[in-house]
Amino acid sequence: MVSAAYPVLAEITRGPLVESRHLGSAVVVDAAGGVVAEWGDGGRVTFPRSSNKILQALPLVESGAADRFNVSPAELSLACASHRSEIRHVDAVIAWLARLGLTPDALECGSHWPMDEDAAYALARSGGTPTQAHNNCSGKHTGFLATALHLGEPLAGYVEYDHPVQHRITQTLSEMMEVDLFAQPWGVDGCSIPTIAAPLKSLALAMAKCADPSHLPAARAEAIRRLVDAMATQAFFMDGTHGFATRLMDRLGHKIVCKVGAEGVFTAILRDRGWGVALKVEDGTARGAEMALAAVLRALGILTDADLIAVQDIFPAPIKTRRGLAVGDVRPVDLGKPGAF
Amino acid sequence: MVSAAYPVLAEITRGPLVESRHLGSAVVVDAAGGVVAEWGDGGRVTFPRSSNKILQALPLVESGAADRFNVSPAELSLACASHRSEIRHVDAVIAWLARLGLTPDALECGSHWPMDEDAAYALARSGGTPTQAHNNCSGKHTGFLATALHLGEPLAGYVEYDHPVQHRITQTLSEMMEVDLFAQPWGVDGCSIPTIAAPLKSLALAMAKCADPSHLPAARAEAIRRLVDAMATQAFFMDGTHGFATRLMDRLGHKIVCKVGAEGVFTAILRDRGWGVALKVEDGTARGAEMALAAVLRALGILTDADLIAVQDIFPAPIKTRRGLAVGDVRPVDLGKPGAF
Repeated sequence: MVSAAYPVLAEITRGPLVESRHLGSAVVVDAAGGVVAEWGDGGRVTFPRSSNKILQALPLVESGAADRFNVSPAELSLACASHRSEIRHVDAVIAWLARLGLTPDALECGSHWPMDEDAAYALARSGGTPTQAHNNCSGKHTGFLATALHLGEPLAGYVEYDHPVQHRITQTLSEMMEVDLFAQPWGVDGCSIPTIAAPLKSLALAMAKCADPSHLPAARAEAIRRLVDAMATQAFFMDGTHGFATRLMDRLGHKIVCKVGAEGVFTAILRDRGWGVALKVEDGTARGAEMALAAVLRALGILTDADLIAVQDIFPAPIKTRRGLAVGDVRPVDLGKPGAF
Repeated sequence: MVSAAYPVLAEITRGPLVESRHLGSAVVVDAAGGVVAEWGDGGRVTFPRSSNKILQALPLVESGAADRFNVSPAELSLACASHRSEIRHVDAVIAWLARLGLTPDALECGSHWPMDEDAAYALARSGGTPTQAHNNCSGKHTGFLATALHLGEPLAGYVEYDHPVQHRITQTLSEMMEVDLFAQPWGVDGCSIPTIAAPLKSLALAMAKCADPSHLPAARAEAIRRLVDAMATQAFFMDGTHGFATRLMDRLGHKIVCKVGAEGVFTAILRDRGWGVALKVEDGTARGAEMALAAVLRALGILTDADLIAVQDIFPAPIKTRRGLAVGDVRPVDLGKPGAF
């Protein structure tokens, strides 16, 4: 029997009780790798999953593929996104693929029903079934295809660990995280590409460099700025109408760009601070990761009391009965102000 | 910042790594209240949520309402169930309501899309939307209405804390748990009825009495045997085609009757041992609670290695890519054999 002690980052209340709790680790790092704040174990090794999509999209820009194919800011945002398969998301992916001379059949991500409930039932009601364009990673995969096409690499098998597309991404991630990811354990992500294990601290460092790319080579810094701007200005394509990340970015303006990963990971690029955040809740839940990010942003003074009051439907998120009565909430824990600021 | 230490009861792997972990508490109790085994904090006070539906159904039988309205074993199972809104579940509830002279409009549980994915998309494809009969608690609520009708109590407001239906249930639960629940904090459950906080140990005691009712008053013992038999023989109505509880009960025959509750609670009635189990994973996840129950059953020697091999699709449950490749699993932790057996 293993016992684990981590701090509580988020909690669920019902009536007068705390009913459930999400434990985890979070770390805030500056662009030189200095730890600004840490809760739990910033050295926790885990798979970043989709939380590092901006890094996986760097070759799309750096290779020249984005310019060659006139990739728009909305499309760049989709390349960094886990969208919710709303019609605008899916149509944008299909249109981008068409410009590459491809159809959703070229994708190797598999399909699933939309994560946006309205979109899912609308699709079913229309007699449709999900295609690979509905996969929340379809924008990222279209970016992979664009890069391979631009560089004259085979398209088939672009999801495999040894394919040039994935090799290039592993190299890019290694540089940004300052970890030799080729030597790290890896697993296969839900969309069939490799996901490579790294400490949260290294993931946060890569995000800090995205927040402050001024010390990076000019071409990389320029690619990062272009992607971060796309994510910030096209936040709808990052998550969707009901998505936590989209709503958080809409509320906090361009101060923060954030990205969820499966199994309870969240990253954030804090542009006005030049810091990066990476966190993981041990249980792998999205609600835990979302509220843990809110807890960290509140501790850093980025999410203010005014924000909390203004967006009561997301921090805390009410828990409602099936008749719509609010009977509890999912809320960030008060982590206190770290001494360093 | 609160720090919490609980044992890991279940874990999620991907490739070579443990990616996520579910921490919690579990306790096994005999019908005299003796603790047989305990992991974490058996005194953890929480809401039982739907894990105590068999207790909430006792007045349906004890009042004579079940006999008066010829309630079938399948209907008794539904009264103790969180079904998945498959057509057979919903049709059975509607037919039972009709025999009472009622329609789904009499229910006060609210509605939601079926938890069974196939059922949900089939409903949408047919142009339908969920009614209150689709609520996973609709069988329990029909039992409440049957009892109120039989006893000449008002039907409207039967979900309220002070309504005779709920008062009777609180009294019954207090007796079974040996806790004065009228003095305990309570919240409102997703289906609008009260859920009253109690220690896991007390919930496990009530389940142990269901496993071995021989020392209870004859009428109560008889009502319990009738409900437990209904749950065991009509396991499809307890959960559904793809439901963990239904498949577990089908595998383990009549040795165990188990029931999930929202926010990571699970109870089990171990008939061949005369013991009751109650557990909660801190994060409130269903996958964590399911695998935690598997971990406890394995530690008790009830779930054997042969069972584990035979039902590889549930313990461990494979985690698959969107193209169907198994890349990890959700599995019970080896808790070891408690010395007491």
